[in-house]
Amino acid sequence: MSPEPFSTWMAGIQVRAEAALGRLLPAASIAPARLHDAMRYAALGGGKRVRPLLVFAAGEVAGADVDRLDIAASAVECIHAFSLVHDDMPCMDDDVLRRGRPTVHVEYDEAIALLAGDSLQTMAFQLLSEHRLTDDARAQLEMVRILAKASGSRGMAGGQAIDLDAVGKTLTLAELEFMHIHKTGAVIRAAVGLGARCSGSNVLSDVELAQLDQYARYAGLAFQVVDDVLDCITPTATLGKTAGKDAANNKPTYVSLLGLAQAKQMAKQLRQQAVDSLSGFGERARRLTELADFIVQREF
Amino acid sequence: MSPEPFSTWMAGIQVRAEAALGRLLPAASIAPARLHDAMRYAALGGGKRVRPLLVFAAGEVAGADVDRLDIAASAVECIHAFSLVHDDMPCMDDDVLRRGRPTVHVEYDEAIALLAGDSLQTMAFQLLSEHRLTDDARAQLEMVRILAKASGSRGMAGGQAIDLDAVGKTLTLAELEFMHIHKTGAVIRAAVGLGARCSGSNVLSDVELAQLDQYARYAGLAFQVVDDVLDCITPTATLGKTAGKDAANNKPTYVSLLGLAQAKQMAKQLRQQAVDSLSGFGERARRLTELADFIVQREF
Repeated sequence: MSPEPFSTWMAGIQVRAEAALGRLLPAASIAPARLHDAMRYAALGGGKRVRPLLVFAAGEVAGADVDRLDIAASAVECIHAFSLVHDDMPCMDDDVLRRGRPTVHVEYDEAIALLAGDSLQTMAFQLLSEHRLTDDARAQLEMVRILAKASGSRGMAGGQAIDLDAVGKTLTLAELEFMHIHKTGAVIRAAVGLGARCSGSNVLSDVELAQLDQYARYAGLAFQVVDDVLDCITPTATLGKTAGKDAANNKPTYVSLLGLAQAKQMAKQLRQQAVDSLSGFGERARRLTELADFIVQREF
Repeated sequence: MSPEPFSTWMAGIQVRAEAALGRLLPAASIAPARLHDAMRYAALGGGKRVRPLLVFAAGEVAGADVDRLDIAASAVECIHAFSLVHDDMPCMDDDVLRRGRPTVHVEYDEAIALLAGDSLQTMAFQLLSEHRLTDDARAQLEMVRILAKASGSRGMAGGQAIDLDAVGKTLTLAELEFMHIHKTGAVIRAAVGLGARCSGSNVLSDVELAQLDQYARYAGLAFQVVDDVLDCITPTATLGKTAGKDAANNKPTYVSLLGLAQAKQMAKQLRQQAVDSLSGFGERARRLTELADFIVQREF
């Protein structure tokens, strides 16, 4: 039996991810209704769902149950949505457009944006603790720890702080990489780590988990480099968010540091390193390989 | 052997709570330094530590190990500190003074306040997952779930949303109670629930856990009523935060709804109901009883 094409698989996971979040987030009819409405507005209705795709692709390596992957994917996506809501606020990037729609603080107000972001973070940890994701509860606690560490001051939030500090500065390539490893890389690694740990037919060894983590590091960085390239070459209407914003804000990017051609080249190299990390898994890592290709080939 | 007086016990826990947080939070020397500095500023250096006191007092009923209670107490206090940082921000209560010092967004800036609050929330779940708090990992996942549920849109953050919505409105006593049960009550209940679940010499039955939870509901509400009374009768310098702020903001309080004398009377009744919930525990609940007294007798 030949597996379904990547595009079919991807569309299927994107539909699943949307449906799972829709089911797991509190209904907008439940009090406080405006807060729940804002949480749903932030988390539903689009996005590429890269992190859920990574959860499912890593889950395939472990032979994991898709219902459990739904929970893990929703938790990671709640963290991602929370970070976007807070990152768009006036005291941060002050952005008005996200996925082609007004950002949460514009559509609602700043206080609701603050609380919706806070509550989406909380929801992530509630999901990881109230559903059974592995038959080994100690391993499930490890999943909570992985997502927490990736999201906090030494992960994503720390990367945002470094980013704020970098405005108007000239960074070295190493410093830019340090920022992105935290800001976007940490949660991408967590997505792969959680998918790989949802219990399934293959319990992965520590060595295998480390190989998947290495894949995630390279793929995460590739994703960021491509984002910088897209931000530079795509019009706002196509991008669904304000284009050229980083340059306008005098923020360092891979394009500003390396130039466009070299940034594209770097993305391709990182893609190769990501794929090389999967060499031991054979066919089980098909989706992870395809995702690395997808990340780099999105638009160029 | 007669137990140490309440005031000695309380001072000891307050010192422990400060020391544990100081040890568990990332050092201000670790990058991103300004973020870590702000997290420490927000969580250290004062406060009554009511939630850690409740964790330890409930832990005494379970005969729990104090090192494990340190972790649980720090997690709950991180949630509390996070909520204060975000609640003080300009888009929320816009307050400049907390515990007699400038609030985080005044001392640092709004972006750092946002990220420090976010990171303190994350830290709570990291603490509950990376340390061993019970020998039964499934029970520890339940502790994560309890704190997450208490903090999110159907707990504390939800209460803050209801509070925002209430400004300038006339609430009934039932509506005011609904708000406080979420805004402050949920995390107080979680503090008791976590302390009672840290494994110790007495594993508590579901009935006993429910009795402690009932105590926490009454004590939490009493705490809020007393807060409203103190906000009304205490000068700013003594209070350490801006006094009379709720009245000035046209926010409903127990005092505005009931008058001062009746609000005081209500606090005393709630204290009695809290203490009555402990009748089955005898001497093991000594500190919880004393805490109920302390909450109500703080200043009047």
